[in-house]
Amino acid sequence: MTQPIALLTDFGVQDAYAGVMKGVICSINPDACIIDISHGVRPQDLLNGSYLLYTSFTFFPKGTIFCVVVDPGVGSKRAALCIKTRNYFFVGPDNGVLWSSVQLESVEKIIVLDNPKFFTPQMSNTFHGRDLFAPVCAHLSLGTEVSAMGTPVEQIRQLDFLAVETDGQGIKLRIVHTDHFGNLVLNLKTRDFLRLSLDYFSITVNKVRIDRMVSFYEEAPSGVPVLIPGSSGFMEVSLRSGSAASLCRSTTGEWALFSFKSKRLS
Amino acid sequence: MTQPIALLTDFGVQDAYAGVMKGVICSINPDACIIDISHGVRPQDLLNGSYLLYTSFTFFPKGTIFCVVVDPGVGSKRAALCIKTRNYFFVGPDNGVLWSSVQLESVEKIIVLDNPKFFTPQMSNTFHGRDLFAPVCAHLSLGTEVSAMGTPVEQIRQLDFLAVETDGQGIKLRIVHTDHFGNLVLNLKTRDFLRLSLDYFSITVNKVRIDRMVSFYEEAPSGVPVLIPGSSGFMEVSLRSGSAASLCRSTTGEWALFSFKSKRLS
Amino acid sequence: MTQPIALLTDFGVQDAYAGVMKGVICSINPDACIIDISHGVRPQDLLNGSYLLYTSFTFFPKGTIFCVVVDPGVGSKRAALCIKTRNYFFVGPDNGVLWSSVQLESVEKIIVLDNPKFFTPQMSNTFHGRDLFAPVCAHLSLGTEVSAMGTPVEQIRQLDFLAVETDGQGIKLRIVHTDHFGNLVLNLKTRDFLRLSLDYFSITVNKVRIDRMVSFYEEAPSGVPVLIPGSSGFMEVSLRSGSAASLCRSTTGEWALFSFKSKRLS
Repeated sequence: MTQPIALLTDFGVQDAYAGVMKGVICSINPDACIIDISHGVRPQDLLNGSYLLYTSFTFFPKGTIFCVVVDPGVGSKRAALCIKTRNYFFVGPDNGVLWSSVQLESVEKIIVLDNPKFFTPQMSNTFHGRDLFAPVCAHLSLGTEVSAMGTPVEQIRQLDFLAVETDGQGIKLRIVHTDHFGNLVLNLKTRDFLRLSLDYFSITVNKVRIDRMVSFYEEAPSGVPVLIPGSSGFMEVSLRSGSAASLCRSTTGEWALFSFKSKRLS
Repeated sequence: MTQPIALLTDFGVQDAYAGVMKGVICSINPDACIIDISHGVRPQDLLNGSYLLYTSFTFFPKGTIFCVVVDPGVGSKRAALCIKTRNYFFVGPDNGVLWSSVQLESVEKIIVLDNPKFFTPQMSNTFHGRDLFAPVCAHLSLGTEVSAMGTPVEQIRQLDFLAVETDGQGIKLRIVHTDHFGNLVLNLKTRDFLRLSLDYFSITVNKVRIDRMVSFYEEAPSGVPVLIPGSSGFMEVSLRSGSAASLCRSTTGEWALFSFKSKRLS
Repeated sequence: MTQPIALLTDFGVQDAYAGVMKGVICSINPDACIIDISHGVRPQDLLNGSYLLYTSFTFFPKGTIFCVVVDPGVGSKRAALCIKTRNYFFVGPDNGVLWSSVQLESVEKIIVLDNPKFFTPQMSNTFHGRDLFAPVCAHLSLGTEVSAMGTPVEQIRQLDFLAVETDGQGIKLRIVHTDHFGNLVLNLKTRDFLRLSLDYFSITVNKVRIDRMVSFYEEAPSGVPVLIPGSSGFMEVSLRSGSAASLCRSTTGEWALFSFKSKRLS
């Protein structure tokens, strides 16, 4: 097998956008191995895209080429990037969506993709997934050196989906993902939460208060939203046999207020 | 080609859950052939999952490894299974979702998957699709003997999506699937329905009465819901150029009352 | 790699219909390369299917076998077709959905698929995707001559998604697609629009007037719907950071009134 190309986009699955990217890739590398991570990033939501990439990429084989297209600035002057790390290639727009994941890796090269030889002949202003990112990934999967595709740079745009805010009442966490089951994923690492060794906590999402933690779904009482260590290493607000998102009438991008008393701090 | 791994889950396609399972599989077997049956099982609905597996698996090549993740009890004590039949491997939780399909096959081995050597190193309580079922399927596709992966057992949990109830007014059928076109699939086999040689029948779904059968969609009159032999061998309530589910304001899991007069019985 | 089989259907992704087609294909050709263009064609909408095929197929490798299943007449007397062109194979029902795309190609053979040797043994009246189109495509990918699969014909049913109407007030364009971002795609080619060299234009969609054009999304002012040259070569009504479809409360299949004053014509 050649190195897999893993796609993460906000294109959804009702359109042909993701399919056309695959057509472009197979036209360049007929033996390409293409894996869909998801096309369900919330439209144009860079934090959600960052979260999904961050919690997915380590499960892919070394050498995987990640093609990440969440790109509200397509057609403007934002650069297109390929970041080669010790284990992977990350390809996508320079809008921060790659930043958090790349922090976990040892970066070897950052290339601004500005060599039109590797783009499709008729370049659009609205679909660089098809015209730039897909062909670049296909050429990478054929073994083309990334240095040939553009200009080295030192810096990329930063965007930290782990960033929180504080106010007088506590820590304002961000809901960075709402999953298919209605679980609300917070930008609070399970590891960090457990380290606090809390006597007491509460999470308030849109006036709904959550102050109980369980360790798996069936342990939760019916009808009561709970906090649970999610499978991706982040704490989630969950409702057994129901949707926490519906119960809290909340979704990705909104805040969750986190208050607590810690054994260690008191 | 290696044996295909066919995925059937309730993960939906907006998240990265299915994508991450593919990453795990390809990390273990880079030449794996992965086919999505569907990730659209109704969340945590074992009857719907049973129906979709039952009506799909026979269309896959011999040797296919079915990875079925509909798993409300994940993290609790429910066992994880691999059932080897003459033609296939069925991998999934021991909650009944595999039962109906396995009845159609000649069972050779039932193994409780309890050998952590074949799991991912950091096992979560909430995502055995990624941490247990995906790696087990990948190892099976590499030719690992299923006996090495766990402990033989004799029995699995039963769940019969074909079960119906009767009351004074008729037979209570179950709506086991609502498809993309709004067709309501009943747990009534076409073969069984036709054998009844009925003079008269009626199906009542949420107060809407259906008493006419057609054999293909264009044969149906406009605006009138009909019964039609569906492509999967089950009778469906259908509405031409419309959604029977919307018309009946009904969906998967609900009952449909079936009354009839039979030539044979009268 | 064998020739890819590219699937375009209105089956959605919640059901197992597309998955079962893949099972059938892999049962016949274990080395088949299957690519999903999309399963999100609007149910039974031939114009939308035509548009999605027309704007996708040229991005696929030569030799690709397009399997197009938008088939409201399944089970009736409508014929099943395979059209071999210089570059591709187009397989689908004879209801016009293939017509616009085939006009761009040099046709070599049109075959009505009437040789049941290439169908599944138990043919349904409701799912020719599984029983006829999938096995035919699998056999084509194995190199079977299309002539062996049926009877040559000269004509196919026409359906022109580019057709417009005029009335006293202007040209009635059709919304042929609504994408995941809420962009409303009109059946007006960008090339044709630009050739008009307009002094002034307005597009009216459900009483919402659009009279400004931009060339990429970030160029658009907030809250104001604009016309933009879409990535597929057609003009789109778009709303920056929002959904034009929601703003206009409009969707695929509806009309958009196009009025203009042209430099050339005046």
